[in-house]
Amino acid sequence: MLSGLLPVLGVVLMLFSVTMLVPLGFSWVLQDGALAAHASAAGLTLGAGLLMWLAGRRHRRELRARDGFLLVALVWMLLPAAGTLPLLLQLPDLSFTDAYFEAVSGLTTTGSTVLTGLERLPVSLNVWRCLMVLVGGLGIIVLAVAVLPLLGVGGSQLYKAESAGPMKDEKLTPRMAETARGLWGVYAVTAAVCCVAYHLAGMSWVDAFLHMCSTMGLGGFSSYDASFGAFDSPAIEAVAILFMTMAGINFALYFVAVRRRSLAVVWRDVEARVYLLVMAVSVAVVTLFLMAHRVYPDGLTALRHAAFNVVSIATTTGFASVDYAQWPIFAPALMLVLCAFATCAGSTGGGIKLIRSLLLLKQAQRELVRIVHPRAVVPVTLGGRLVPAQVLASVIAYMLAYGAVNLVASFVLMASGLDLVTSVTAVIASVNNTGPGLGQVGPAGNYQGLTDLQTWVCTVCMLLGRLEILSLLVLLTPQFWRR
Amino acid sequence: MLSGLLPVLGVVLMLFSVTMLVPLGFSWVLQDGALAAHASAAGLTLGAGLLMWLAGRRHRRELRARDGFLLVALVWMLLPAAGTLPLLLQLPDLSFTDAYFEAVSGLTTTGSTVLTGLERLPVSLNVWRCLMVLVGGLGIIVLAVAVLPLLGVGGSQLYKAESAGPMKDEKLTPRMAETARGLWGVYAVTAAVCCVAYHLAGMSWVDAFLHMCSTMGLGGFSSYDASFGAFDSPAIEAVAILFMTMAGINFALYFVAVRRRSLAVVWRDVEARVYLLVMAVSVAVVTLFLMAHRVYPDGLTALRHAAFNVVSIATTTGFASVDYAQWPIFAPALMLVLCAFATCAGSTGGGIKLIRSLLLLKQAQRELVRIVHPRAVVPVTLGGRLVPAQVLASVIAYMLAYGAVNLVASFVLMASGLDLVTSVTAVIASVNNTGPGLGQVGPAGNYQGLTDLQTWVCTVCMLLGRLEILSLLVLLTPQFWRR
Ligand SMILES: [K+]
Ligand SMILES: [K+]
Repeated sequence: MLSGLLPVLGVVLMLFSVTMLVPLGFSWVLQDGALAAHASAAGLTLGAGLLMWLAGRRHRRELRARDGFLLVALVWMLLPAAGTLPLLLQLPDLSFTDAYFEAVSGLTTTGSTVLTGLERLPVSLNVWRCLMVLVGGLGIIVLAVAVLPLLGVGGSQLYKAESAGPMKDEKLTPRMAETARGLWGVYAVTAAVCCVAYHLAGMSWVDAFLHMCSTMGLGGFSSYDASFGAFDSPAIEAVAILFMTMAGINFALYFVAVRRRSLAVVWRDVEARVYLLVMAVSVAVVTLFLMAHRVYPDGLTALRHAAFNVVSIATTTGFASVDYAQWPIFAPALMLVLCAFATCAGSTGGGIKLIRSLLLLKQAQRELVRIVHPRAVVPVTLGGRLVPAQVLASVIAYMLAYGAVNLVASFVLMASGLDLVTSVTAVIASVNNTGPGLGQVGPAGNYQGLTDLQTWVCTVCMLLGRLEILSLLVLLTPQFWRR
Repeated sequence: MLSGLLPVLGVVLMLFSVTMLVPLGFSWVLQDGALAAHASAAGLTLGAGLLMWLAGRRHRRELRARDGFLLVALVWMLLPAAGTLPLLLQLPDLSFTDAYFEAVSGLTTTGSTVLTGLERLPVSLNVWRCLMVLVGGLGIIVLAVAVLPLLGVGGSQLYKAESAGPMKDEKLTPRMAETARGLWGVYAVTAAVCCVAYHLAGMSWVDAFLHMCSTMGLGGFSSYDASFGAFDSPAIEAVAILFMTMAGINFALYFVAVRRRSLAVVWRDVEARVYLLVMAVSVAVVTLFLMAHRVYPDGLTALRHAAFNVVSIATTTGFASVDYAQWPIFAPALMLVLCAFATCAGSTGGGIKLIRSLLLLKQAQRELVRIVHPRAVVPVTLGGRLVPAQVLASVIAYMLAYGAVNLVASFVLMASGLDLVTSVTAVIASVNNTGPGLGQVGPAGNYQGLTDLQTWVCTVCMLLGRLEILSLLVLLTPQFWRR
């Protein structure tokens, strides 16, 4: 089974080595002393990819659906390994555990960090960390829109149905490669605009590039320990809020919107509409709550900090402009719950995805009606479309696996000695690819203080969350490996 | 709609007033000075019941399924109101909010208390508190086995299918009243044996009676602030463990076992078997954990305290023999999670019920197989029986409502100023009818320090949890009230 995948993995590694030229370029221009590390990393990755391609070339065969699961898992485990190289080569004190955590955190667009003193790192290392978020974000969009629906994981068929609806009218070629290319175009253009907007709002070009990467991927890496607190600029925060919100919407919708030259497509999408509503209401609620508790001297300041930090956490980005863990607990707890539900499928955000939550709500509502009218036939619909029973069953299985992973991982962290709040929120922040939790891993702390075991638990959680859990769990079933 | 229910409610109130003769008798014999309170309470309750019966007599009509929901809700809101009378009449400083909380806590067999100095209360008041647990426990068994399956709430049809399976062979009359009578017999005999066993283990007859009530109802009220810590007796704890474990199993099984004169019925039941396994494994895990952390000087002491407190919380009883909140957090957190899952349907325990959890696990497992073999037809079975899709859908709706109630209530408590751990665990302990949470409401604390709003939130949670959530939520749908 594996040998057939080797050439594909080799190509992916070789492509990945090309992205390493970006930090290498930065290092060259800025003379930050990390040139050798980037060059070696790129060379090693290219070499490894080439070897795999050569070794597997003879076994080349048509890939089947089942290979998809293994391929997705291997790509998301192998790329972080390559991603550690620039970090390990430049920072001799960094352990492989921590470097792998950092790379997984980037490529899964989580944005948790085990590093401190980010300002003192060679700039090109921060470029590499953030670039992994940008690359990971694109990978995830393609995964969610083009790959997972084919594999039928956790109701993701529904995303396809939903987004393929309008897209079919436009004769979007259904093949994976072409879908990927279309998404890539939209993503690249939005990223460029975001970078320019950050610069116009006052960031240096380098900072603009770095934070554009983290914003587009909803990853939350920064080149400052204080994250957006380092800028203290309402204009920069406004740009961030705009692009975080945009990146939390299904990119397939933008693709269609561009073709049709009309944003109505986005607004007509149920999920996107509810998403915007959830964001607006959450910001309003937290603002009022902060005002009621007189956390800030005036309403405008409360609105400013609520808007930035709520959108940042709810979209699973993880930037912070203030230490919101100091707010009365209702607010940060609400933000953490939002990160589990609020983003749209096909975005770079993490979590359960809004469409799944909507579906489950509809299902519960139907059941209430059925209790009163046991013989009534009440179909579950979403956006006027009937939801097949099979999709509902998949979503439910996904939710169960999601709950089980959160529970088990939290208990492992507790057993390893972490306190209740840190354990539970570290797992939530990792599984939902958000980044900061509360307690020891709050916005003012980070993941540096964890033991190796604890770090690995969070690493596995980030991967599980990013790959929609079931597509990894399925690899553990005997049925998968039977011919 | 309401007028048709009045005579039924009146009869229930009159029957309830009869149970008030028990504490009255205790007060008479023990001369504890609360005689007037009990007599007035019984008289008022009888009078109110009589009035309702008289007022509604003319509107008497056949009750339909939909009346069932309203009746169940009204009974469980009205009886606590009557239950407050002995407390309010004897304790002039007690507010109605607190008295209602205490009565709901008793009748829902939760066992949370807002009272301290229990040793200084008139004994008959403690008798009344504990008796409410015993009465509530019987009510809940009848509700779960005979009423909810008819109403089709949250997959409870399945309990019926499961327990009606063996029972049908025995020609158990399916009518509610006869089922209730059979269960009542089993319950009464077990209670008598439990009382004698507590006395033989060293309790006074009064203590034996009080704690028998709390044990059978899995309620957890005690006449000592220190709960079972006041006895510090391994023999008494062993009796408690035995009867708590027994009360956590579906009473319909005992009923069949008595008829067949064989306990094999219990062991053949999937849910009961998994339940016993979960208890054994949990006790073993916590014992080993306590030993590894050297919480107690030797393994036997660790086993003793783990066995008692784990079984107490996992069965949703809520007795404590030590302040287990001082154990490393892994253990108490695990115990709280168990209380949400571990008890059997048709027992006096609270929570989601093991059968629902098993069903969901099977559903998730099936989905993993389906991902690998998309065209395979894999039915969900439990104990060799096929589970209808409708039952699965009901269970899922129940789980969603359960999750939503926990979330919303936790956030209300947080917004009201409680800390994260207290808020979340108070809600878990209330919704699952367990009693002690962690933080401020931990085994060494109680619910006395809560504000009125916070107390009402917990009261509503106890009622929602006890009535399987959906059967209360359905009253909020417009469909229910439409003719
Ligand atoms: K993210
Ligand atoms: K209970």
